[in-house]
Parts: sequence; C-alpha cells; structure tokens
Amino acid sequence: MRRVDIAFDAAGLVPVVIQDWNTGEVLTLAYANALAIEKTRETGELHLWSRSRDELWHKGATSGNVQKVRALRLDCDGDALLALVEPAGPACHTGARTCFHEGETDLLAPHEVLPDLERVLAQRKAERPAGSYTVTLLDDPALAGEKVQEEAEEVTRAAREETDDRVDNEAADVLYHLLVLLAGRDRVLGDVQEVLRERRG
Amino acid sequence: MRRVDIAFDAAGLVPVVIQDWNTGEVLTLAYANALAIEKTRETGELHLWSRSRDELWHKGATSGNVQKVRALRLDCDGDALLALVEPAGPACHTGARTCFHEGETDLLAPHEVLPDLERVLAQRKAERPAGSYTVTLLDDPALAGEKVQEEAEEVTRAAREETDDRVDNEAADVLYHLLVLLAGRDRVLGDVQEVLRERRG
Repeated sequence: MRRVDIAFDAAGLVPVVIQDWNTGEVLTLAYANALAIEKTRETGELHLWSRSRDELWHKGATSGNVQKVRALRLDCDGDALLALVEPAGPACHTGARTCFHEGETDLLAPHEVLPDLERVLAQRKAERPAGSYTVTLLDDPALAGEKVQEEAEEVTRAAREETDDRVDNEAADVLYHLLVLLAGRDRVLGDVQEVLRERRG
Repeated sequence: MRRVDIAFDAAGLVPVVIQDWNTGEVLTLAYANALAIEKTRETGELHLWSRSRDELWHKGATSGNVQKVRALRLDCDGDALLALVEPAGPACHTGARTCFHEGETDLLAPHEVLPDLERVLAQRKAERPAGSYTVTLLDDPALAGEKVQEEAEEVTRAAREETDDRVDNEAADVLYHLLVLLAGRDRVLGDVQEVLRERRG
C-alpha cells in the first residue's frame, strides 16, 4: 500500500522521469495521466500521455523501442514519478540513447563511466579491430583472469604501502580487466550487481 | 555553443531533473526560470524557482544541503534540464537522500547496488559493530587485498571452466572485497571511476 497518492496537476498530468534500470542513465522527461499509468501497470510497458498530440502514447510502439517498467516510484508529495525501465533501444527520437544529449555532455559523470566502458567492450567484441589487446583478452577469459589476478596483487601492494593515487589506479586496472573478463563470458556488470543485491537481502 | 536553447513554458519555467553526479541517483524534480539558471551559472550552486512560494530558491540555503552543479544538460527539444550535482546532504525535506522514496522502492535497481554497498561500508566503519568481519578487513587493507587476490583467482577459474552463475558470484566477491579495500584506505568507487574516465580521454 502506497502512503502517497499521485497528485495530478490541473490538466490531469504528472511528470515522469524515465531512468535506465541497469545503468541509471536519465533517458527522458515525459508526462502521464491516470489512463497512461493504468495501461503501464496492465502491460508492464511504459505508457505516457503525449501533450503535443493529446493522446495516449505507448512509448516505442512505432520504433519497437518499448520500455519495460521495473519500478514506479513517487516523490515525497506525489507530484512527480520516477519510472525505472529496461529500454529495448534508444529512448530519443534522434536515435540517441538518452534525450539529454545537449549542453554540458563532454565530461562523463562518475556513475556513467562503467556503463560507458561496457559499451566500448561490446563494440570491440562486435567489430574486432585488428591488433586490439582488448579483443585478445575478450577471446581468452583465462588470460583476462590472469590480468585480474596480476592487478589484484598490485592493488594489494598499493593499499599496503603506496599513495592514494596508486591505489585508485591499481583498482581501476582490476575493474577494467574484471569487466573484460565478464564481457568475454557474455556477462555484464548488471548480472554481478544482482548477485550483490541478493546477498544484501 | 549549445545547439539547443532552453524552451521555457508559458509560465517562464522549465522542469529540472536533479541527479547525483557520483551515484546517478535521481534526487528531485523541480523547476527553474531564467533567473534561477543565471544564479546557478554565477554561483555553481543549484538555484531553482519555487512554484509554491513563487520565489527564487537557492537549494539548501536553509538546511546547508546545497548542491554543487557539475553539469547542466538539456534534452533534444530543450524543454527539460538535467542538473548533475554533488549534494552536501539529503535532497528531500524529509531528510531522505532522494525525494523519490515512495512507491516501489523495495528492490534496488542494479545501478543502485554499488552506491548502497559503499554506504553500508561507511556505516560499518563509523559504527564498528563488534565481531564484524567487514570491520576487520576495513582495518587491514593488506588483508582486504589478500581477499581480492583470492577472489581474483576464483573468478579466473570460474571464467575458464565454470557456469555463468559461478562467474557472476566470483566477480561479486572480487567487487565486494575491492570496495572494502578502497574504504579501508578512505577511497571510494568515484575516485576509481575518475581514473577510468581519464584513460578514456
């Protein structure tokens, strides 16, 4: 039972922040009315209300890029929703992954770094550029694993007796090679995060 | 030079999705006018427009929980902003970290798992519960490092010859102990993510 009800505005709408369930990337800000929320709950796929067309909008119905809704959250006073979704493709009509691709986008936020790295690894795996060290590691999980072990030794030494900067750099090496190893086995960070969530209980 | 200008609505406002720069957590949905954006750019701290009080709102001016703005992004048609911020404290007037604490909040999203684990480690470090294995590791980065190495060996074996489930579990062990090792040295995942971002160039 929710303690807070949705507070629709005078036009019967509520803003919906759409966020990627796996990566945390904010994809779109859109609007829903009671019907859109009912359809979302009924189908498990995100439905919105198009203010420009003044009609129900099944996100991705035309493009195929539907968004599976994993959780619908409300803010403290119920006048904004947060939809955590698994998108089947780009959220933006321009083909960009997120609608928020204008303005100060040059610098990745820390939380964007690992999802970005995973996308790069997937691209390397698909395109297989000649002479790529990463491709060699992707093809050989045992070799990638050896690198994880080597870097684990180095981060241990750094943690014992070296500077903060060295600790950060060696930890980055561990993470990088761990993600390569996972990609080589067609696993993603999200799979590992789900294991950690289960343990948290 | 931005290609897209901010498209204020008829009331001179634009919705602002406020997101944590480090963790990716969506904190608040609020509104800004041209003055609020000017003040934000001038001071580097988030300014909004309070629709209920109809006045300029320097977020956190009263509570001390100001939010340093690291990037202001716009969506494709300029009618929504994304403010990536470093908050000095809870974003919600209830004292909660985020305003979106109602509705389906039971299950952590994958992207929320590592930030949550880091908060647990910080709490263990502060409260030092008796007999805690984690506290033992936090006090001894060399020991935490040995665990990282041990788990690195196990994830290598898993990647070579075991099931996906075993790979995920051993990778989770590496990640957990790596975060403990970092916490023991007062480093956070964000520090490591910044190293990876630098390398990405």
